[in-house]
Amino acid sequence: MKHRLLAAAAAFAFSLPVAAQEALPPPSPGEIAAAAPASDWVPIPASDLLVMDLAPAGKAKKNAPPRRVVIQLMPAPFSQGWIGNIRKLAAAHWWDGTSINRVQDNYVVQWGDATEKKPLPEGLATMSEDAYVAPEPEDIFLPLFQVNDPYAGAITLYKGWPLGFGPIDPEDFNKGQVYWPLHCYAMVGVGRNLSPDTGSGAELYTVIGQAPRHLDRNIAVVGRIIAGIEHLSSLPRGTGALGFYEKAEERVPIKSIRLATEMPAAEQPRFEYLSNESDSFAKYADARENRRDPFFIRPAGGADICNIPVPVRAVK
Amino acid sequence: MKHRLLAAAAAFAFSLPVAAQEALPPPSPGEIAAAAPASDWVPIPASDLLVMDLAPAGKAKKNAPPRRVVIQLMPAPFSQGWIGNIRKLAAAHWWDGTSINRVQDNYVVQWGDATEKKPLPEGLATMSEDAYVAPEPEDIFLPLFQVNDPYAGAITLYKGWPLGFGPIDPEDFNKGQVYWPLHCYAMVGVGRNLSPDTGSGAELYTVIGQAPRHLDRNIAVVGRIIAGIEHLSSLPRGTGALGFYEKAEERVPIKSIRLATEMPAAEQPRFEYLSNESDSFAKYADARENRRDPFFIRPAGGADICNIPVPVRAVK
Repeated sequence: MKHRLLAAAAAFAFSLPVAAQEALPPPSPGEIAAAAPASDWVPIPASDLLVMDLAPAGKAKKNAPPRRVVIQLMPAPFSQGWIGNIRKLAAAHWWDGTSINRVQDNYVVQWGDATEKKPLPEGLATMSEDAYVAPEPEDIFLPLFQVNDPYAGAITLYKGWPLGFGPIDPEDFNKGQVYWPLHCYAMVGVGRNLSPDTGSGAELYTVIGQAPRHLDRNIAVVGRIIAGIEHLSSLPRGTGALGFYEKAEERVPIKSIRLATEMPAAEQPRFEYLSNESDSFAKYADARENRRDPFFIRPAGGADICNIPVPVRAVK
Repeated sequence: MKHRLLAAAAAFAFSLPVAAQEALPPPSPGEIAAAAPASDWVPIPASDLLVMDLAPAGKAKKNAPPRRVVIQLMPAPFSQGWIGNIRKLAAAHWWDGTSINRVQDNYVVQWGDATEKKPLPEGLATMSEDAYVAPEPEDIFLPLFQVNDPYAGAITLYKGWPLGFGPIDPEDFNKGQVYWPLHCYAMVGVGRNLSPDTGSGAELYTVIGQAPRHLDRNIAVVGRIIAGIEHLSSLPRGTGALGFYEKAEERVPIKSIRLATEMPAAEQPRFEYLSNESDSFAKYADARENRRDPFFIRPAGGADICNIPVPVRAVK
């Protein structure tokens, strides 16, 4: 696991003359993404970004910067009722002063109002379980990406998001097909109580372990963390049932959650993703499935969809 | 495997009065494992356990208990050359005073000698890449457990461990089949330099994110963490390349690593695993693939092998 020298070697590889390039080892997936032309990267609108600032870590560091986490919200037609609620909650500054309440190893980090008594803003939508899935976006046929998924049967990609798809009703294929977002690492979902409750969006969680894909179609997925997940995944695990913190002082205070569009333009975070329709992405995905860079001696010939994360990067 | 749980639930229900039968919800996978008879649990020999004690967390807690991590070593015929080295290194107390040096989010935690200069004990084996795989254990045919794995083609279970299997050479099936351990969450592997180096076993890592199954057959897997992984997975992420800590003071000191058999009998940790040949395990695995406990509204119909972890528990 010590391929430190390789990273340095690859950094200048693309500036070398052709003769030298022929001697170069095959690039890693990360190198393929880094070498993609600017036109293959798609800006993420600031209106789709939520910025969560946690209180600084440690008691000794009063002037330390906040721990910042950036969440990208899913595009239509997925989970839009809950996402509308989340936009309202952020606009109302509802999460300010709430906390991270649950950290369960190899599963999820969850945040919201630990008292479960804070009144919600007026006018939030109540969503039905039918909305865990959606019809085909834009009424076009999305190409298959994988067909050997153990959960969904088949996987496609849409605007930088992996989606499962399959029949609405496995007993009756004539009812048509639906699409749904996946519980991969860093995805953000809506906590809920027992069915038919579907949650409001005030209680959120993110995945910090092996993809709990059994939650797909059972909970609303509303987005993914694209920066700062280490501020959540490295928190102490809760010792209560389901990883809830047992003492109030263990909870990590949330300073604020804001839509990026509420911040001054110069302070708004900017991100872009590698278009899943680009040749660069096709090469990247192939390299994730078949590692040929020098550390590897045997390519796998396939990969779990959650092990082919769509590259997202900050724009300088 | 989809209908086993229904039969199991029915069998369980017959021992109850009729009114209670109607009220009982289907059990969760954890409830199925907890209800398994004692005869379905297999003790793990103390000779297969490594106990790693990290220095206590925080400067203010000088008398705090060590952070204890317990590793179970793989059974023969897998990775035995490296495991032999690991037994020698533990017996020589070689790791005492070394450290956790790397924490890469959604990937691995790695430990060993940060200076890379500490002399190794005499007589360690040098292993070949051929030993990343092994022939069929005990020369019996292990039954198939899954056939839709995106990496291995097929999965089996052996003494509580998931294994991939497939042809030695995909171009020539006549050369026979081999078996190999998988990089699931908490599995422990041997760090190495570029091929043909295979590592000695002195530099170890564990998986703390989405299963990096592309490492299967490319690195030796030697065991898995069965207790205390939260002491590793919740460490601050390293800010250097590949998640290495950049400053010496960020490293977490390893107080000691011992084979459990070196500890006084009364202090030796005791664990057992749910036999993968038991009916209880079959019901557990089916419930992981098809969640029917009350939180779920739609069973998936399948599961990633790394999402069906073999239950392991401490013996009181």
